[in-house]
Amino acid sequence: MPLVNHKFTLASRPVGMPKRENWAYVEEPVRDLGTGEVLVKVLLISLDPAMRGWIRDQRSYVPPVPIGEVMRALALGKIVRSENPKFSAGDYVTGTLGLQEYCISDGKGLMAVDSRLAPLPKFVSVLGMTGMTAYFGLLETGQPQAGDSVVVSAAAGAVGSIVGQIAKIKGCRAVGIAGGAEKCRYLISGLGFDAAIDYKSEDVGAALRGACPNGVNVYFDNVGGEILEAALANLARGARIVICGAISQYNNTGATVGPRNYMSLLVNRASMKGMLVFDYASRFPEAVREMAAWMAEGKLKSREDIVNGLEKFPEAFLKLFTGENFGKLILKVAED
Amino acid sequence: MPLVNHKFTLASRPVGMPKRENWAYVEEPVRDLGTGEVLVKVLLISLDPAMRGWIRDQRSYVPPVPIGEVMRALALGKIVRSENPKFSAGDYVTGTLGLQEYCISDGKGLMAVDSRLAPLPKFVSVLGMTGMTAYFGLLETGQPQAGDSVVVSAAAGAVGSIVGQIAKIKGCRAVGIAGGAEKCRYLISGLGFDAAIDYKSEDVGAALRGACPNGVNVYFDNVGGEILEAALANLARGARIVICGAISQYNNTGATVGPRNYMSLLVNRASMKGMLVFDYASRFPEAVREMAAWMAEGKLKSREDIVNGLEKFPEAFLKLFTGENFGKLILKVAED
Repeated sequence: MPLVNHKFTLASRPVGMPKRENWAYVEEPVRDLGTGEVLVKVLLISLDPAMRGWIRDQRSYVPPVPIGEVMRALALGKIVRSENPKFSAGDYVTGTLGLQEYCISDGKGLMAVDSRLAPLPKFVSVLGMTGMTAYFGLLETGQPQAGDSVVVSAAAGAVGSIVGQIAKIKGCRAVGIAGGAEKCRYLISGLGFDAAIDYKSEDVGAALRGACPNGVNVYFDNVGGEILEAALANLARGARIVICGAISQYNNTGATVGPRNYMSLLVNRASMKGMLVFDYASRFPEAVREMAAWMAEGKLKSREDIVNGLEKFPEAFLKLFTGENFGKLILKVAED
Repeated sequence: MPLVNHKFTLASRPVGMPKRENWAYVEEPVRDLGTGEVLVKVLLISLDPAMRGWIRDQRSYVPPVPIGEVMRALALGKIVRSENPKFSAGDYVTGTLGLQEYCISDGKGLMAVDSRLAPLPKFVSVLGMTGMTAYFGLLETGQPQAGDSVVVSAAAGAVGSIVGQIAKIKGCRAVGIAGGAEKCRYLISGLGFDAAIDYKSEDVGAALRGACPNGVNVYFDNVGGEILEAALANLARGARIVICGAISQYNNTGATVGPRNYMSLLVNRASMKGMLVFDYASRFPEAVREMAAWMAEGKLKSREDIVNGLEKFPEAFLKLFTGENFGKLILKVAED
């Protein structure tokens, strides 16, 4: 019985929010392996806001996904066949496996998963690119010092929730901005944030002044737009803004809005710096070990929002932009 | 004969471009000195774009000039009377002497001028705050490395012209953006820039791609607006943007325009950082000595645009915003 693969390819480039017709669901036989290749059965796919950028036809840090190609996605899978001496059937790996059931890889870019450290979903969440983004973005780009006020937007989201908890581990004050009372309660009672601001019901600028009376030392931005401006308006001297994402702008059909008060960087001798997690790839194993230890000590929690079935992708992906998901959004493609 | 002082005070806060009626020209007797005070005869006043910010009613790095008070201005003067043991009649000093003929000071913030190093106007230009801004902004905030492409806007201006020349001294490629063919010619033949872009007649984005085929490593921004966006669109990986000013925005009556493509910071792992020269005050003497040596070696040139007469201030100040001035704009108040 030859194996059959199902996958989503990019049918057309979305304008605004991606629609069902922008995707094609394709069935194909799985071909034989060549020398050095492995066949990976995809188990868990990470759904990330960055994917919206990958299907836009513009210069970025990776080329756009071509029309007709399988949609790019980070995922966790299990090696089922191997013609590569570095991998054996039964190994768990993560990598850019794509939005599909089976991925054939030459092994480059695959990372081994030590499944004794944590349950598998954690490896596409807190111990995956999501957690790495939070870890290196906050610690390397944000340079938090004990006692600093660290503010993060999309704080109940996959990256934001980890940023706030690492800030606490490092002796900072953690302030989260999230949408809705339930998420705000979770930040404080569930994750130990010092303060939470509900952007849906509060004036974020005024609330930030209250929560950070001495100003914001580190602002980790996942959203852009007016919340970035509210943070700029409340910077402490020498503040660091980490530019990790701008989800409020990703589905814009008009022009992106730039931060009108960016001259606050001058007034406060502050910086705004972009980060990309892939630059830290050589240090991922060290970070995974440290994060796993924090999890074992109960200092670091993560929540996964798991949607079952590859075919659910088009609707599930939109949850990232409507604010519906709560925790790391994962598409479960197959049982282990 | 008691001395008489003339000064400009702020009569009202300008909306848009400052007008004559925003200023009051006031005559007053010079009072006697108290203990520890000095009387400074103002000779040369530095006219700077930053002064537009000082009369805006908003939180900044210094409090706004109050209505009815003498306009804040950096200047060079000569001590004519001293009740302060640190200063003697005949000493030259620079400091925030204000837009007036005589300043009474307690000596705090006055810096001694070693007039053997260079002619006096240089001390409110390349050896004054202007030059210090270029020196510390480029070297400390911009962190140029030999071989880098360093781009500066308002390049024929007081700060910009020094930035480009220091970039050359440090082994970088210097690209200046200025308004008009004459200024562009001056950058190349007069100051040794490698390339000059005339924003009045060229598409700055396209011209930057041509002048910096490997991208912009350091962009020193004096102007903001569309030129900042053109630089953001052409960054090299790991680029540094120095936010020194935003002269295109200072007389806006509408909202400031933020850089719409600031997410280029993420794509290029780049940073945008504000700088204020006053933070480096303790290192000014060292920088003045180094800059004076470069001048003596013929590696660093500066051009001063000197307007005679304190009463010319209201019109002279506007030259900064219309692009009419060429080199450092100085108001000469009195002969030495």
